[in-house]
Amino acid sequence: MNLLHPLILASNSPRRQQLLTEAGFTFDVYTEHIDENYPSSIPTSEIAVYLARKKNDVYRNKFSDTIILTADTTVVLDNSLLEKPQDASQAFEMLSRLSGRQHEVITGVSISCQDRIDSFSVVTSVTFKSLTEEEINYYISNYKPFDKAGSYGIQEWIGMIGITKIDGSYFNVVGLPIQEVYSHLQAFQA
Amino acid sequence: MNLLHPLILASNSPRRQQLLTEAGFTFDVYTEHIDENYPSSIPTSEIAVYLARKKNDVYRNKFSDTIILTADTTVVLDNSLLEKPQDASQAFEMLSRLSGRQHEVITGVSISCQDRIDSFSVVTSVTFKSLTEEEINYYISNYKPFDKAGSYGIQEWIGMIGITKIDGSYFNVVGLPIQEVYSHLQAFQA
Repeated sequence: MNLLHPLILASNSPRRQQLLTEAGFTFDVYTEHIDENYPSSIPTSEIAVYLARKKNDVYRNKFSDTIILTADTTVVLDNSLLEKPQDASQAFEMLSRLSGRQHEVITGVSISCQDRIDSFSVVTSVTFKSLTEEEINYYISNYKPFDKAGSYGIQEWIGMIGITKIDGSYFNVVGLPIQEVYSHLQAFQA
Repeated sequence: MNLLHPLILASNSPRRQQLLTEAGFTFDVYTEHIDENYPSSIPTSEIAVYLARKKNDVYRNKFSDTIILTADTTVVLDNSLLEKPQDASQAFEMLSRLSGRQHEVITGVSISCQDRIDSFSVVTSVTFKSLTEEEINYYISNYKPFDKAGSYGIQEWIGMIGITKIDGSYFNVVGLPIQEVYSHLQAFQA
């Protein structure tokens, strides 16, 4: 797709970079440290899109005539967020909570160009089988999921042997709802 | 997982080989040409498991003390099968039929060892957005999906930009319901 302006993906996630590449886009990656706090008044389901928009607001004033794409992925269980685990014990606790249950993965996306900004979020329901302690420990030791919200990657071993079904977009759980991103980027076509 | 006997994957599909590897299994691959006909009396939804079982019956008598895994993936729309396309024109016709609609992907799996045989199938619903002719032609020219039932790979460009949602197992659509295979193989554990 030929876009009206150069595209910048403002995310360090190699998974997002790969999805955007495989969907056929050329882009540059630019990121800087951004405070990811959010007001406690925001409903849990809206935090992802709030953070995507907040990041976009930081970047879009730095580049003129450029399309800026930002995203944030959250894992929601019992109306609370499961963030990135700080150590193996937190990862174990999160995976034990996800075991045998359904949860939601919500990715917020924000796409801007000059004074236009388009923000949305996509929800996928994910169901895990009952995981054994041995399976959880094997995964944490071998895959070290400390950079992943909810302590798992659907494309890794635990996703293959542990997830019984999803309802929605698979790539949204990987980190970017690429079908929806593609559709929204059509509005920025040359 | 330590299995009681060596495992043979009787499938040439590189995608099935990759999924089984990433799920942590060691195995050999063995295949030979098998006639994939089926009686016309079989309900469409049961053809995949019929063919998986039929293939397994051929292989399991050739190996003793070996676990044999066979699979067959079918794409079902309007109660009929979409097979592998023979040329670009058939692929175009199939993708045009899938466009803007939901269909089912059914993978039949058969796992045997000596006189024990375990056969099952897994269904995933897949929904495509309305595809443009340009998108369909771009995909066929660049990805040549002639080895794929239904003329598409969910993990390829058309899956990324065209599939709005799935209901069920993602890896089942890739070609092997790896979570269910893992669970069933537990019965053959050492």
